Amino acid sequence: MHLHMLVDILIGMDPSADISVIESRIDRLVKQYTGAIDGMTIPHPCAAVLNSITEQARISSQGGKRLRALLTLTAYDAACSSYGASIPKDSQRLCATDLACAIEVFQTGALVHDDIIDDSDLRRGKPSAHINLASTFAHWTNPLHQVLQDASGSETVDTSAFDSSDSSYGKGLGIMLGDILATASIEIARNASQTLPKAQEIIEAFLTMHREVEIGQVLDLGVEHVPLNNPTQLVTASLGVFRWKTASYTTIAPIELGLLAAGVKQVKAHAAAQGIGMSLGLAFQLADDLLDVVSDSEHTGKPVGGDIREGKRTVLLADALSNASDADRAYLIAAYESRNRSPEQVSRIIGLFDSTGAIERSRERIGKLWRSSQVSLAAAVQTLNLTPEAADRLYNACARFIPPELLES
Amino acid sequence: MHLHMLVDILIGMDPSADISVIESRIDRLVKQYTGAIDGMTIPHPCAAVLNSITEQARISSQGGKRLRALLTLTAYDAACSSYGASIPKDSQRLCATDLACAIEVFQTGALVHDDIIDDSDLRRGKPSAHINLASTFAHWTNPLHQVLQDASGSETVDTSAFDSSDSSYGKGLGIMLGDILATASIEIARNASQTLPKAQEIIEAFLTMHREVEIGQVLDLGVEHVPLNNPTQLVTASLGVFRWKTASYTTIAPIELGLLAAGVKQVKAHAAAQGIGMSLGLAFQLADDLLDVVSDSEHTGKPVGGDIREGKRTVLLADALSNASDADRAYLIAAYESRNRSPEQVSRIIGLFDSTGAIERSRERIGKLWRSSQVSLAAAVQTLNLTPEAADRLYNACARFIPPELLES
Repeated sequence: MHLHMLVDILIGMDPSADISVIESRIDRLVKQYTGAIDGMTIPHPCAAVLNSITEQARISSQGGKRLRALLTLTAYDAACSSYGASIPKDSQRLCATDLACAIEVFQTGALVHDDIIDDSDLRRGKPSAHINLASTFAHWTNPLHQVLQDASGSETVDTSAFDSSDSSYGKGLGIMLGDILATASIEIARNASQTLPKAQEIIEAFLTMHREVEIGQVLDLGVEHVPLNNPTQLVTASLGVFRWKTASYTTIAPIELGLLAAGVKQVKAHAAAQGIGMSLGLAFQLADDLLDVVSDSEHTGKPVGGDIREGKRTVLLADALSNASDADRAYLIAAYESRNRSPEQVSRIIGLFDSTGAIERSRERIGKLWRSSQVSLAAAVQTLNLTPEAADRLYNACARFIPPELLES
Repeated sequence: MHLHMLVDILIGMDPSADISVIESRIDRLVKQYTGAIDGMTIPHPCAAVLNSITEQARISSQGGKRLRALLTLTAYDAACSSYGASIPKDSQRLCATDLACAIEVFQTGALVHDDIIDDSDLRRGKPSAHINLASTFAHWTNPLHQVLQDASGSETVDTSAFDSSDSSYGKGLGIMLGDILATASIEIARNASQTLPKAQEIIEAFLTMHREVEIGQVLDLGVEHVPLNNPTQLVTASLGVFRWKTASYTTIAPIELGLLAAGVKQVKAHAAAQGIGMSLGLAFQLADDLLDVVSDSEHTGKPVGGDIREGKRTVLLADALSNASDADRAYLIAAYESRNRSPEQVSRIIGLFDSTGAIERSRERIGKLWRSSQVSLAAAVQTLNLTPEAADRLYNACARFIPPELLES
């Protein structure tokens, strides 16, 4: 290993080194906070269920890009190395890392509930938590499923006859898993904050993040029923909801928590996080929706046009409705108001997103929001007395939220 | 009003006065913590959904007996009036009241999720939260439901064609409502603790309570699949699960949080809460299960034998299985292993609970647990230096968890 790589790792400049620490901490924390409590006697037949919950918590925690945790740590490092800051102890960076992990654990729990609400069978290309839990216990809920034993004596459940009527038990366990992960995230954040400066402000910001996302999810369930005859209203509603549903925990809270953990005053941390994080978070969500129609499925792990198939009401749809001919608008409205959309319809809708200029309009929206977040970043560099190196690293951590090809637009 | 009544109210001895304060605080806190956040712009069509969530949060919060909040406040008052304690400010009792309310808010959220998991349409004689939310938005999810307008112009949804296929949207909203209430309970507890002694210990105990109940619910989902051929195992499993699922937030946390709020040291508060609360909480759950078969439905608000109809595996069932003749045991196992139990089967099973001595055995179990909690209470009176008046009030607050006719056994 070259010396500069070692130095990079030691002072947290190399995100890949941070990522491996984050991965191992998340696994350890999730195991610790979702399992039996010290001194707990688990009655025999229930232990299998609790073990499956802990195991599913670990599985559901895997495979994220950890953008939120990296942004948290980068904001922390930036503030710690600002002009005039005193260098924190190594143990404090470990606590900041746990705080960063707490945001990821919170997200995992929210996604477990989200998949139940949306009735999604897949997450990151694997069975979603409630589906996996349902198949683990399929032999309990339906005698058609037999327990198979292989030569070594280890058991698996034959789920070849598995159908959606078996999923109710899995949904029940999934609701509880989401609850357990939500509580775990707060316990992890609280324990991490105890030896950090601004411990009280950290917990306050963490709980505010919880509430904002939960309320944002409720608003999002409303967006699904916005009438399609008013595209301007749909754009306003979607962007309004993104701020709570996405920007809150994706960009705003990571920056705010990272800065607070480094001892930045609450007012300053809040202003910087809102300034940079609000527009960056909206750009991130728009880019995510755009990738659903322009990217190949290998890139995103999701089939192209998945949002369209599910009938998700996006800014892309609103922009297409705004600019479509009367005939195309009528086609779009009819397609989104029916219960399902066929592969042919999905292709034609993607075509309309392109021909109406909605895709180009989304690129412009993303570019404008990105530039706005960079203006706020420049202002924060001044207010927080950041060094040029720290400013660069913070820039890079922000840029990771937007696909490179969209940054240049 | 007689002078002694006034004095009782002023020093919190009269539970009816506390109850009215608790009711109004819960309504206010729930409204505050489940609605829009300050400065939040709610996009137009989504406001209706968020308002319904807040309104449902308030509805779901009504109608509880507030035993947990009263126990919290009684433990607080007892410790505050102990020999040598300094008298706290009035503002501190208000904070202790909010802390007591936080436990009730937590329970409300847990019950919202519980009703979704159990697919229960009723709670306290009214439609459960997800059912009520489903019917509020039935016209969105199914065009068969029309919006009716009365002479005054106010709108209601015609749900005469409402069926379970409409409930998926309501379940989604219900999952989010439960999440919002869980977060709200922690925010309420945290804000209440800030001007109380032992603020850190209070939050720690509150989060531990969250985790214990959530893990207890998971274990409970395991109990439902304990094989019926081993009644001893079923008794051990049930009682083991009651400690986490019920005693945790019903009796242990209220006592611990009330004592901590009064400044009692963590070790002492924990020991007293475990001693009194563990056996009292188990007795409470056994009494609740017993009332399901011996009480009239007017008393409990639930139909007699509801647990049996749902096939809930209780200690009563285990005791009946242990003592039944071979023929009766076979009947019980067959009845509980089938998907449904008819009213005739429910009656015959209640008869078997009686004739096998299971009902009497439950009375004995409850009496023994109650006496054990009283031994622990006597010990706590010594350790905490309680006055005889405070000890009496704490006794009364505990006794409210057990129906009077069972206390005498």
